[in-house]
Amino acid sequence: MESMNDALRENIGYVDGHLREYLANDRLLLDRLYESVNYTLFSGGKRLRPLFCFLTGELFGVPRERLVSLACALEMIHTASLIMDDLPHMDGAEQRRGQPANHLVFGQDVAALASIGLLTRAYEVVLADPQLGPELKTAIVERLARAVGMSGMVGGQFADLYFDASESKAAALAFIHELKTASLFVASGVTAAMVGLAGEEDLAALATFARSFGVGFQILDDLSDRAEDGGDVESAANYVTIHGPEAARQAARDSLNRAREALDHFAGKNGKLLALCRLLGRDQWPESGSGEGSRA
Amino acid sequence: MESMNDALRENIGYVDGHLREYLANDRLLLDRLYESVNYTLFSGGKRLRPLFCFLTGELFGVPRERLVSLACALEMIHTASLIMDDLPHMDGAEQRRGQPANHLVFGQDVAALASIGLLTRAYEVVLADPQLGPELKTAIVERLARAVGMSGMVGGQFADLYFDASESKAAALAFIHELKTASLFVASGVTAAMVGLAGEEDLAALATFARSFGVGFQILDDLSDRAEDGGDVESAANYVTIHGPEAARQAARDSLNRAREALDHFAGKNGKLLALCRLLGRDQWPESGSGEGSRA
Repeated sequence: MESMNDALRENIGYVDGHLREYLANDRLLLDRLYESVNYTLFSGGKRLRPLFCFLTGELFGVPRERLVSLACALEMIHTASLIMDDLPHMDGAEQRRGQPANHLVFGQDVAALASIGLLTRAYEVVLADPQLGPELKTAIVERLARAVGMSGMVGGQFADLYFDASESKAAALAFIHELKTASLFVASGVTAAMVGLAGEEDLAALATFARSFGVGFQILDDLSDRAEDGGDVESAANYVTIHGPEAARQAARDSLNRAREALDHFAGKNGKLLALCRLLGRDQWPESGSGEGSRA
Repeated sequence: MESMNDALRENIGYVDGHLREYLANDRLLLDRLYESVNYTLFSGGKRLRPLFCFLTGELFGVPRERLVSLACALEMIHTASLIMDDLPHMDGAEQRRGQPANHLVFGQDVAALASIGLLTRAYEVVLADPQLGPELKTAIVERLARAVGMSGMVGGQFADLYFDASESKAAALAFIHELKTASLFVASGVTAAMVGLAGEEDLAALATFARSFGVGFQILDDLSDRAEDGGDVESAANYVTIHGPEAARQAARDSLNRAREALDHFAGKNGKLLALCRLLGRDQWPESGSGEGSRA
């Protein structure tokens, strides 16, 4: 576990260095826009999506150097969504990672532009990467755009905001988790696997893993928000507030079990991904062979 | 001139039909998001960027059927920027094409998501187009993203908002026009020409044409806003308010002249593009051979 924490820290340093290169500002007139971008991009994110991307790459023998633009793009997209979701007319969050939200420092206008700018730069860095061929770039950016757009995070955020109007809260919540959180995790694994020329079955297993992992991760996040008496508790689309903490813990456990089972597809090669799951799932993550892992 | 107006109308019908197909909504939970998108997308836009795209295609023998996804992507990007720029924390416009602005009908949250969703769909439709090869898709989407992002419309809107803080108003204004308006015009022509496998010199001539045309068009728009006593008059970044109407008219004339001169590169093939310029430039557009066209 200790070595995984070290790996996590090392990964953060590696990703951050490249992010800074991709976001160098050479136009004086845009200083404050870049400041706004950098403020949230370098606010202590764990770089989990890049890490998941790199670990998936390892499964297919792809060195992380080859995945740098993709990993940074994933983090840019994630950060863009945080800035956007925190806006007053969205979730209206005042804090992000213990600091004032972007719009409270730079204004709503700059924050919104920083978010769109960052989103766009994500596509740009992949498309400009000389290491990737055009077929791969096309497939990757299409997958990223799907994770972002109306069938992804944008649709999920919309459904989250208009949650109460829907007929079935539980069904809507699953839809929201799928679109808002799981979609980018899925894209992180699937696009990295594409670079590794993974076959359909491998891609499907990774997508199942990432979807379950993303949903489990989101529920754990809701539980931890509740424990900390902060964050999204007021949000309508919260597994804990709808189903209660006990059911939420069980659902997280189930999701992470499904994630682990999906990794069985990569038997013998999945050590690091499994370690990542354990680290993030903490006590919710059942030990391998504990019996809880077998599902009907 | 009459036939050009007919062509303009026919083009609108053609583009609108395809836009509707690209924006079919198959998820009940997202109804209102799609409504918001469609509200501004089908609010009477002239579809100039698609038209410019098609006319450029003609120059290189590319039928418009092959440019449909690109033309629609350009219009989606343009519409996304209108929705975003109208937001209260941006330009704060209450009207758009004679109707209440998107956010006044659907709320700021939905409007912002509609804008990002539309922007993302633009990339998606090009990337999913079976008519275009991966090299072409990659080059096109990279070009579109550049026109959108921090070196394009996002940067231009930022500079527009923070205009007063800059040292030189005139220089900043040129920068803003270049990024905010001209960049998408340039991308419209250049990407269409890429599909036509245009060479470097042709691309450069088209870029010069589109840049000058875009800037001239923007100044004419500022002049017409002033005449109608509405629109962007309060905006700091307005050629008319800074330089006065006489200088603005001259600058528009100069820009459109530069645009026309760039078309000389396509001597004998440029009839329709020239007709488009005339139509849009109205009385500002100097007649060919009037003498005004010759520049030092």
